[in-house]
Amino acid sequence: MAGDASALLEEAARAAERARELQEAAAAHISRTWTEEEALRKRALALDSDLRRLQSSLDFAAKKGGGGDGGGGGGGGGLDPRIADKIDEELYRARCILSEGDVASLLPSKAHGRFLKMFLGPVNVRATRKEVQLKVKEEYNSYRDRTAFLFLLFPSALLLLRSSVWNGCLPALPVQLYQAWLLFLYTSLALRENILRVNGSDIRPWWIYHHYCAMLMAVISLTWEIKTQPDCANKQRGVQLFLAWAIMQGVAMLLQNRYQRQRLYTRIALGKAKRMDVVWGETAGVEGQLWLLCPILFVLQGFEAYVGLLLLRTALDGVSPEWQVIACGILLVVMAVGNFANTVQTLMAKSRFKAKMKRTKSKQDFDQCTSPTGPSPTSKSSKEA
Amino acid sequence: MAGDASALLEEAARAAERARELQEAAAAHISRTWTEEEALRKRALALDSDLRRLQSSLDFAAKKGGGGDGGGGGGGGGLDPRIADKIDEELYRARCILSEGDVASLLPSKAHGRFLKMFLGPVNVRATRKEVQLKVKEEYNSYRDRTAFLFLLFPSALLLLRSSVWNGCLPALPVQLYQAWLLFLYTSLALRENILRVNGSDIRPWWIYHHYCAMLMAVISLTWEIKTQPDCANKQRGVQLFLAWAIMQGVAMLLQNRYQRQRLYTRIALGKAKRMDVVWGETAGVEGQLWLLCPILFVLQGFEAYVGLLLLRTALDGVSPEWQVIACGILLVVMAVGNFANTVQTLMAKSRFKAKMKRTKSKQDFDQCTSPTGPSPTSKSSKEA
Repeated sequence: MAGDASALLEEAARAAERARELQEAAAAHISRTWTEEEALRKRALALDSDLRRLQSSLDFAAKKGGGGDGGGGGGGGGLDPRIADKIDEELYRARCILSEGDVASLLPSKAHGRFLKMFLGPVNVRATRKEVQLKVKEEYNSYRDRTAFLFLLFPSALLLLRSSVWNGCLPALPVQLYQAWLLFLYTSLALRENILRVNGSDIRPWWIYHHYCAMLMAVISLTWEIKTQPDCANKQRGVQLFLAWAIMQGVAMLLQNRYQRQRLYTRIALGKAKRMDVVWGETAGVEGQLWLLCPILFVLQGFEAYVGLLLLRTALDGVSPEWQVIACGILLVVMAVGNFANTVQTLMAKSRFKAKMKRTKSKQDFDQCTSPTGPSPTSKSSKEA
Repeated sequence: MAGDASALLEEAARAAERARELQEAAAAHISRTWTEEEALRKRALALDSDLRRLQSSLDFAAKKGGGGDGGGGGGGGGLDPRIADKIDEELYRARCILSEGDVASLLPSKAHGRFLKMFLGPVNVRATRKEVQLKVKEEYNSYRDRTAFLFLLFPSALLLLRSSVWNGCLPALPVQLYQAWLLFLYTSLALRENILRVNGSDIRPWWIYHHYCAMLMAVISLTWEIKTQPDCANKQRGVQLFLAWAIMQGVAMLLQNRYQRQRLYTRIALGKAKRMDVVWGETAGVEGQLWLLCPILFVLQGFEAYVGLLLLRTALDGVSPEWQVIACGILLVVMAVGNFANTVQTLMAKSRFKAKMKRTKSKQDFDQCTSPTGPSPTSKSSKEA
């Protein structure tokens, strides 16, 4: 027994010793990692400022020579356009590696933004490893899929029950549950999209603002009294319009998701083959879908604006003069206009990018950067347009 | 000019080359870090399972000997209590290092929880470095400070304006703005507390559930129609009670913050001196405040339950028979009971811990683990109680 006890004591003491050793190893590991990262960061920042300097001297030299069209020789005393193109390409490639490669995760990240700070505080939501970032994005897409399904289901069920069970009069509670769900949904989408942005996604800021507007609308609609008195078909006109719009929104989300998901799969597959994220060929397989998607999106945006204007008219006619109806109407119109403007801009950026792709098709190793809407290709093609 | 161009081209090519080198260095760094972390993780997991095994054989040996009171010799054939204490101490110290030291950040983290996943998706919110974790906590506390101030200000202003400007009748919009703010506030607090938990904070789960209840109440109160017709003093009784409770809640938050903050400062200061987080002496400077804080908290919890019951009575009397009033009443009572039970449990854990501290005061290096409510000291003292 006494032997047992001393053996146990000895083993426990050894375990405590192992814990201390482990603690030292971990502390050393963390501080060494930090030092190494610091060094890499410094190199990356120095390179970044060099790239900026080179780009501006290239721009300066090109300007001095006059905007000579890339036909044969250069303008008087300017840069040979072929050499300028070559320089531009080298700089572009270096910038791509900096922004898309493994160094990117060590660089000071994009600001987390007020929205994330407001909800989460100063915590870091950036993933260091590329696989994790892609996983976050994949999960976001599947979240949108599940969501789009509910987005179709909820308002459809409400409108169906209204005419079949509720005698044309929506009860307050189910509608409010739906509105609360909308609020949660838009909040989580806005949070996730902000997180994606921090992780290097090139999501357009508008789509995040759009979700802020939608959050605001969901909160406002929660305070919106749902009348059940007689003549509710008239008084509930606003709610019905809102639900009809939500159904169409669900359809749009499903279509967009299909498109986005296919884009991501292409990227991951090519990314695996090439190690870095890849840009062209990216839209290759889904080109057809984009031309199906866009008209539907435009119709939906028109409908969104129409619902907004109808809401405003209902309020101004005095049918339901609550401020909530006016506010929701204005928000819908704003969202419709913003959505339209941004869809058009995205399409234009894509076609500009394709034009550039054709021009530089011969260059084998151009496929090193991700974003078709990124600054470099666009600014270059617009310079030459 | 041609020389200029070729110099520029050369420099650009060199920059691209540097980018490639940097990419390789970063990729190597990331994979090396990963391998090292994996090795440390394996060691930590092995040690953890050894500690469990040792603890259970210690428990087994102690039980076999019968619960001999630590007077002189041991019971028949059992473990000498002094040796058992020593073993227990070694194991405790090792466990503390594992859970509080730098290794902790490399171990698989506490599950992120459904709430965080729902809002943020599968992103990692854990900080690797201790300083960052402490910064997150410090920011959380200062957020609570700012919040408590607004928590006092908003409802006070509403109640003051009601009697001085609004002739005893609250208009809907300001109250709804306040309710929307409450919803935002509780959501962000719940998110931040979940993040703190992931980062190793020992916050009691109840306080997070409490914020879920409060979120639910804020959503419900948003759908709660605020009547402005005649006799609104009566019809708005529920809202007024709610605001009065909110004011008291603000006072409680301010007091709690003061206490928590002082605790954290002590911890950081001692932590710097001793490198690891520190447990005793932790409550030393703020002992007096705790005995001021607790009665106030109990009074507030009583008031919370009282407001809940009043709301229920208002609803059942038929003064304002909306389901929202009933739901808010029930939620307030649930929160009051839960708060009370948890405050009592915290106090009991603290006094148990103090008793243990007295018993082991002679041991110099016992101050190595953080949580006064952690499993080890409590389970040990309860075993011997």
